[in-house]
Amino acid sequence: MNDNSVSREERESGSRFVPKFDSNGLLTAVVVDVDSKDVLVVAFMNAEALARTRESGNVHFWSRSRGRLWLKGETSGNFLKVEKMLVDCDQDALVIHASPDGPTCHTGARSCFYRRLDPDADDASALFSASR
Amino acid sequence: MNDNSVSREERESGSRFVPKFDSNGLLTAVVVDVDSKDVLVVAFMNAEALARTRESGNVHFWSRSRGRLWLKGETSGNFLKVEKMLVDCDQDALVIHASPDGPTCHTGARSCFYRRLDPDADDASALFSASR
Repeated sequence: MNDNSVSREERESGSRFVPKFDSNGLLTAVVVDVDSKDVLVVAFMNAEALARTRESGNVHFWSRSRGRLWLKGETSGNFLKVEKMLVDCDQDALVIHASPDGPTCHTGARSCFYRRLDPDADDASALFSASR
Repeated sequence: MNDNSVSREERESGSRFVPKFDSNGLLTAVVVDVDSKDVLVVAFMNAEALARTRESGNVHFWSRSRGRLWLKGETSGNFLKVEKMLVDCDQDALVIHASPDGPTCHTGARSCFYRRLDPDADDASALFSASR
């Protein structure tokens, strides 16, 4: 599946899907709310997670911390239903527009990105609520 | 900077910024167009790229392929001006809302995500124009 024999031109402009997994066998997956376009979660997929996502229509990841396949929502019931998948120029990242069944973050937040970083602040107090 | 001594609760709900770099010293950075909310590019930052981004207000990455710090736009002039930075629950990913000075992708496309993946299609012809 990870075919490095394709030319750069074919990879960047062709219609052939040749996902480029990194040295750990992963690519980056960004899930966006199909309606609001807010980024909900950023995680990783290995070849199996990608295949299961395509087959089932529900987002699957590879959990780096748990070292196993992870159907998003398997515990919470808050699945992410795939509406549209986009791939980037060098095919090492995906953007998935999805309909969330409920809050995406395990903290109960709608999105994992619920805090803003003040770039100028000291790290000790640089984060604040994104809704403020 | 990468402080693993903080509790999970402090990491997830505190105001302290403790970016969690992976075993390669990287975190994921997703750059979104501040106006359209389209994802423009997904790349990685090491501690230096993050610090330079915060100081300068222009997005910097760590280029995995070139093994060096990379000011986005250094060649093309198409810088990404930081408008807002968001951090996720476990602080290993950033979403940056930015104003692009021009096309973000090196191919000349506005976004690197200019192709859609048909999940049901054979890989040989699974990609098509995202604007279609």
